Amino acid sequence: MTGAGTDKTRPMVSGGPAIILVRPQLAVNIGMCARAMANFGLDDLRLVSPREGWPRTDERRETAYAAAAGAVYLLESAKVYETLEDAVADLGFVWATTARKRGQGKRVLPPAIAMPETAAGISAGEKHGILFGPERTGLDNDEVALADAILTFPVNPAYASLNLAQAVLLTGYEYFRASQGDALPFANLERAPQPADRGMLIAFFDYLEDQLEARGFFRPIGKKPLMQRNLRNMFHRMQLTHQDVRTLWGAVTRLVEGPRHTVQTRKRLGPKQTPKKVRDVEPDVTPE
Amino acid sequence: MTGAGTDKTRPMVSGGPAIILVRPQLAVNIGMCARAMANFGLDDLRLVSPREGWPRTDERRETAYAAAAGAVYLLESAKVYETLEDAVADLGFVWATTARKRGQGKRVLPPAIAMPETAAGISAGEKHGILFGPERTGLDNDEVALADAILTFPVNPAYASLNLAQAVLLTGYEYFRASQGDALPFANLERAPQPADRGMLIAFFDYLEDQLEARGFFRPIGKKPLMQRNLRNMFHRMQLTHQDVRTLWGAVTRLVEGPRHTVQTRKRLGPKQTPKKVRDVEPDVTPE
Repeated sequence: MTGAGTDKTRPMVSGGPAIILVRPQLAVNIGMCARAMANFGLDDLRLVSPREGWPRTDERRETAYAAAAGAVYLLESAKVYETLEDAVADLGFVWATTARKRGQGKRVLPPAIAMPETAAGISAGEKHGILFGPERTGLDNDEVALADAILTFPVNPAYASLNLAQAVLLTGYEYFRASQGDALPFANLERAPQPADRGMLIAFFDYLEDQLEARGFFRPIGKKPLMQRNLRNMFHRMQLTHQDVRTLWGAVTRLVEGPRHTVQTRKRLGPKQTPKKVRDVEPDVTPE
Repeated sequence: MTGAGTDKTRPMVSGGPAIILVRPQLAVNIGMCARAMANFGLDDLRLVSPREGWPRTDERRETAYAAAAGAVYLLESAKVYETLEDAVADLGFVWATTARKRGQGKRVLPPAIAMPETAAGISAGEKHGILFGPERTGLDNDEVALADAILTFPVNPAYASLNLAQAVLLTGYEYFRASQGDALPFANLERAPQPADRGMLIAFFDYLEDQLEARGFFRPIGKKPLMQRNLRNMFHRMQLTHQDVRTLWGAVTRLVEGPRHTVQTRKRLGPKQTPKKVRDVEPDVTPE
């Protein structure tokens, strides 16, 4: 969405389960997995017997680094193991991801249920890890047997193929949600700081309704209370800010009065008075 | 995870909100978005003024088709618009995805809250759509202004860059969860069909505890009830199947008796008798 890379000015989330790529085939996919991990603050990347070797200095490593975008720090710190047994030796709980039935009698959970378990375990000091198999074949049955439980993804049954980095992404996303909540990068900042107070809104409604009344809008007259209530509710649903009301009031004033006052008139009144104040003094001015 | 492509033998999920890629820069990303849509059964892909044009016959189109894997049917049916206004004209509710604050006073929601709203709207007959901006810059403010509300992703603040297909993937994932639940492709099939019945388990416990008792395991004797209970609870936590108990019983029997009986003895008993039955007849046989 915005340019890639680590933003050192913002809080870094870290920790989480180990992401264990078992016999990954393509270096580019390792890079994409690193990027997906960084998005959700996971920082323990383990590689078991990567087919193209690791680390290396040829163009495949370049490809991995390019695919990782700003997450090369994860490639630099990735641990490489010859066997899966070595890679999971320090872990207390292991998930195996698989897209098909294995008949091993283990629990099978989606990430939205599995990752809250892992977040709770990790916050209690446990070490958890998640196995992801090779791109084409997935984990073999002996590898799945090393796990405590199975993680699988709710997908369209007719199109169940998730690539490696997408599986890591969904897992990281649910771990992040479980450990951080739906903490959004800017949600609390987005709402304008000055919702219009009710007094200002009501003054605007009064003005608008007076103008409408004078122009015969409320007909039949017996319907006026209902029409008025509907109109007010429409505006309330807009959750107007102070500035929104100024803008609307100005728009209605222009509709009512026609072309704007001369520059002299505007200067005399000044640009920053609120509609309420202005109206008390001189009801037909344009709020800005 | 498994090979890509549409599996016509399995139920196809379809429908969902329109995915509207606004001024996408790279054809390869359009292909990856199509694949992410297919994973979660979304089938309304709209392209607004794609930078590389669409459709075309050169190698960029090839790249898009390769990236879409089996989801080329979505590229074939994608609708192309010159303006965003045209692309959203038939929709009743529009989300704009953005990774940064826009100060437009709209609601800002994560996909886990936004997509249940959209699933409810769609099931009530509404038409919803989701805008995704160009890879490098995101939507511009006029484009965001066309939307009813903002969708953003809970991510590591220090590494907030999601690529276009990842943003589509997370959105599709949450729509699928909201509309289908955490329906897993095989979870209900994974549990073995024959959990061991309690009678069989208790017969095994009795056998095991008799053997342990005879070997002086339960010391001091006052602790026997507690030790026994702990031992039984360990086995209960394993959620043993019928076959699991047969296997464990066989293992304990071998530990107790040493090397296996002669072939003649085995043949006389037959291979398929259950431990319970066998034990009633001849307590020291090996269950299989």
